[in-house]
Amino acid sequence: MITRLSSYFLKTLREDPSDEEARSHKLLLRAGYIRRQSPGVFAWLPLGLRVKAKIEQIVREEMAAAGAHEVHFPAMLPREPYELTGRWEEYGDNMFRLKDRHGADHLLAPTHEEAFTLLVKDIVSSYKELPLQLFQIQDKYRDEARPRAGLLRGREFTMKDAYSFDISDEGLDASYQKQRDAYERIFTRLGLEYVIVSADAGAMGGSRSEEFLLPIAIGEDTFVRSAGGYAANVEAYETPVPESLPIEGQPAAVVFDSPNTPTIDTLVTHVNATMPREDGREWTAADTLKNVVLAVTDLEGERSLVVVGIPGDRDADMKRVEVAFPNCEVEPATPADFAKHPGLVKGYIGPGFADAPVLGLEGTSGVKYLLDPRIVPGTSWVTGANEDEKHVAHLVAGRDFTADGVVEIASVREGDPAPDGSGPIETARGMEIGHVFQLGRKYAEALGLKVLDENGKLVTVTMGSYGIGVTRIMAALAELNNDERGLVWPRAIAPFDVHVVATGKDPEVLEVAEKLVAQLADARVDVLFDDRPKVSPGVKFGDAELLGVPRVVVVGRDAAEGFAEVWDRAAGTKEKVALAEVPGLFA
Amino acid sequence: MITRLSSYFLKTLREDPSDEEARSHKLLLRAGYIRRQSPGVFAWLPLGLRVKAKIEQIVREEMAAAGAHEVHFPAMLPREPYELTGRWEEYGDNMFRLKDRHGADHLLAPTHEEAFTLLVKDIVSSYKELPLQLFQIQDKYRDEARPRAGLLRGREFTMKDAYSFDISDEGLDASYQKQRDAYERIFTRLGLEYVIVSADAGAMGGSRSEEFLLPIAIGEDTFVRSAGGYAANVEAYETPVPESLPIEGQPAAVVFDSPNTPTIDTLVTHVNATMPREDGREWTAADTLKNVVLAVTDLEGERSLVVVGIPGDRDADMKRVEVAFPNCEVEPATPADFAKHPGLVKGYIGPGFADAPVLGLEGTSGVKYLLDPRIVPGTSWVTGANEDEKHVAHLVAGRDFTADGVVEIASVREGDPAPDGSGPIETARGMEIGHVFQLGRKYAEALGLKVLDENGKLVTVTMGSYGIGVTRIMAALAELNNDERGLVWPRAIAPFDVHVVATGKDPEVLEVAEKLVAQLADARVDVLFDDRPKVSPGVKFGDAELLGVPRVVVVGRDAAEGFAEVWDRAAGTKEKVALAEVPGLFA
Repeated sequence: MITRLSSYFLKTLREDPSDEEARSHKLLLRAGYIRRQSPGVFAWLPLGLRVKAKIEQIVREEMAAAGAHEVHFPAMLPREPYELTGRWEEYGDNMFRLKDRHGADHLLAPTHEEAFTLLVKDIVSSYKELPLQLFQIQDKYRDEARPRAGLLRGREFTMKDAYSFDISDEGLDASYQKQRDAYERIFTRLGLEYVIVSADAGAMGGSRSEEFLLPIAIGEDTFVRSAGGYAANVEAYETPVPESLPIEGQPAAVVFDSPNTPTIDTLVTHVNATMPREDGREWTAADTLKNVVLAVTDLEGERSLVVVGIPGDRDADMKRVEVAFPNCEVEPATPADFAKHPGLVKGYIGPGFADAPVLGLEGTSGVKYLLDPRIVPGTSWVTGANEDEKHVAHLVAGRDFTADGVVEIASVREGDPAPDGSGPIETARGMEIGHVFQLGRKYAEALGLKVLDENGKLVTVTMGSYGIGVTRIMAALAELNNDERGLVWPRAIAPFDVHVVATGKDPEVLEVAEKLVAQLADARVDVLFDDRPKVSPGVKFGDAELLGVPRVVVVGRDAAEGFAEVWDRAAGTKEKVALAEVPGLFA
Repeated sequence: MITRLSSYFLKTLREDPSDEEARSHKLLLRAGYIRRQSPGVFAWLPLGLRVKAKIEQIVREEMAAAGAHEVHFPAMLPREPYELTGRWEEYGDNMFRLKDRHGADHLLAPTHEEAFTLLVKDIVSSYKELPLQLFQIQDKYRDEARPRAGLLRGREFTMKDAYSFDISDEGLDASYQKQRDAYERIFTRLGLEYVIVSADAGAMGGSRSEEFLLPIAIGEDTFVRSAGGYAANVEAYETPVPESLPIEGQPAAVVFDSPNTPTIDTLVTHVNATMPREDGREWTAADTLKNVVLAVTDLEGERSLVVVGIPGDRDADMKRVEVAFPNCEVEPATPADFAKHPGLVKGYIGPGFADAPVLGLEGTSGVKYLLDPRIVPGTSWVTGANEDEKHVAHLVAGRDFTADGVVEIASVREGDPAPDGSGPIETARGMEIGHVFQLGRKYAEALGLKVLDENGKLVTVTMGSYGIGVTRIMAALAELNNDERGLVWPRAIAPFDVHVVATGKDPEVLEVAEKLVAQLADARVDVLFDDRPKVSPGVKFGDAELLGVPRVVVVGRDAAEGFAEVWDRAAGTKEKVALAEVPGLFA
């Protein structure tokens, strides 16, 4: 195929659009791949469509290889199924909703779990028809509060979403693995580096959830990884539990006056000034036990307080809090909450112990006390004594206090140990480019998807959900593959195989170029041909560099002698090559 | 490619869904091509996606041949541009509207004129970049009051919409012709019979608009055509103007009492009883002039009355009225309208003439009088005398009365002459499958699309709009191509090239079938292979007939002797063919 720039629908911009933050977005706009329609909503120009189609083709091929069948749902779906699974409410402002002329509610689907579940319920009735994997490549809508960075976080985006259906947990594991493998192949073919991180494992009750993250500074996610290969979402990081310490021989707990020390910093200063340690070590925040009071509202709207003890040198990480209390809304306790529980003395809260008002007694009734996993038996702490301006030192876990359970809400830091023993972790920025997720039976139960098993008994199907952001991947590839002159697409998804530039006004040069592009087209090379008659070589070169076709062939001065110049944009090389040899480069 | 039914995502239904009116829709549901999501909104199963993709591919190829560039817009667009062109209001209940989290208005686009106009405004600045044709294949939304017949009239549907951009009317004509030619090629390749009818030509101020109609009983449009090749929408039929008649020698007009004759029927009875003609011919309704009073409200909301004289044997056709009064709302005059104009004596209205109260005088001020084109000078009429229970006979046009203009609102009938002299017309039912339309400068003016012309002057661009309903075409093809056993797809868009059925439990038969499908796949034949081990031949044959792959190869009893049975569904033949010759049939 030959596509002639002289009649192509394209306008490149000399200058970067001023108000765009992401390099990829500036380049995709400047080079004429996309245009903005409304915040986070874009139109696709011919160049953009070509790249998007190539990514979709790779995804399709690997979905077929995984045994998934392609179907297609509309963007607009009726409310009822989303009502049954609770997502009509849960999505809040993130979902676009609308009414039809008869007043019936619809939504623009952010994902299609409900629709796929109902489709399989309609079609499949026996275990013999499972396992089953279905997918679609479809335009989704999410009403992001702050759409940003162009395609990287839009309100409309193209996604491949796949769903698996099995009757057994082992079946789900196998389907999950097939999709996970397909994702690895897809990202490898696209030349995208990725890190597979555990995601939200706690919240899912043990079933698997992993994200494919692209390590990239512009990414919105923070993840942790160790040199030894561990990687996880910050939300999914699990603190390794230290060994318990011997309790015997530790000094007895001592309550002391601590006027005006409601914060960890003031407390540490106070104890260093008034209670120097025998071994001369300074007290630090790590010696203190910080007690965080959270108000947790469950799905039924019941609000209760939970106090969590964490090492004083860490904060509560609200993203980890969310995961720790699935299906609940959690916020720091308000003055009204404290007013209802006079036993909680703000700034001086501690776990209950022998000589002090205890959590669970009068004034704190119904309040749960949970501990960070690091607070193992034998660890000794300075913490609140549950009286105004009083703290207690040498309070030993397992001797002086216990808790109702363990919970992970403390912030994660570089240098923390990887839970698998693979060394200290570092934190990095990443962008989610794929997500594989064992849904289990939640959707099948809500929507009644059951099949007959081998014994003729109805059993509920277990599902997985697997998503790849097609348009986000395109932007990520643009973000990673560019230089100061423009885009430099990987060959697998470049809009054309080669960009042939004919320069100068010599009709002979144009003739040579015409002959070359005809040869290339005959060899099934997809050619973009800059045949514009009145455009200067400088502008043509600039456009070639901006558009980002990875290889450029310049037919100019040396054409009469039988030579062209071949640019490899990724390698940064420009070579003089005999014209006769050019088609061979694209074989 | 080999697709195995044993692992395909498909369920065929034994029975027709009971509540569906269109044969195509019943079959597409039964054979597992689509599934309903909400009224007029469908999900696409793998078989359906295949057929749809083939239609889209044909459309894409012919758009490329016409020189159109592919782009893609989102379904959700912002309100403002539609506000500027007036369509935000005009679409009324037919448009889906929604608000985002910030309260901004959006719509699900029914068509994309505004978006394309703004895109071209953004990209194109000079006449040198024109002419330009752009298209997309995209999912559209219209909130139909009564979605019906499945894909034939849905609320969501896939459409190819193209738009052309030119600076001159001649350029627009050329672009229009290119799209029109492409449509002819598309429908020919799809094997769809079509009639190109003039549509609404009057309303568009002379620019062209044509519909491609599929003549089919289930169609919602009525059109007229002559044996000599004329075809038009009923709305676009233009009455040929008869020759004027000599006025001299005609009897003088005579006013007569006509008690209790407010209708044409009562009037005709009355004059036949009281005023026999000299030549003995009976008076008929065709001799009378019926005066229809219409209330016309323009875009500014101004309501005025128009009286239209039409031959008494015809009625006002409200669809033709709509076209005759573009950008107005028209309804029959109400009692309140008559009350404001006491000069209009209901049941006895006529054109003003010498001896009677005249339209335009007291009591009828501001009322226009228009005539059907058949009321040429010299024609003589029996009509109202503008007094209660009085009519006038021998009232001759051009002698006794004139009018403010000519208008086409009278009903069209079989036997009326084609305006091009190609003989009498007949009426037929059709379904719109394509529409080509000269928009002119309406959208470019509303949205400020101007380019520099050869003299460096800014000129407004003139546009065309060209639509093909992809999903409707698929349903139309299903409606036309089926028999009592199921679908019979034309080869160009069949989901597979061949459906191979292996019957019986003999492992040797299956082996022969496996070998055959492998040979076919090697020859790049796209095979659906019914390899289901425990399904009876009867069920397999039934499914093969229902699914509608046009050729079926049965490998069964005769396989051991080296023979298969080849069915041609369209021809209705079943032939014994040597296995070795089967691949050759699909070369």
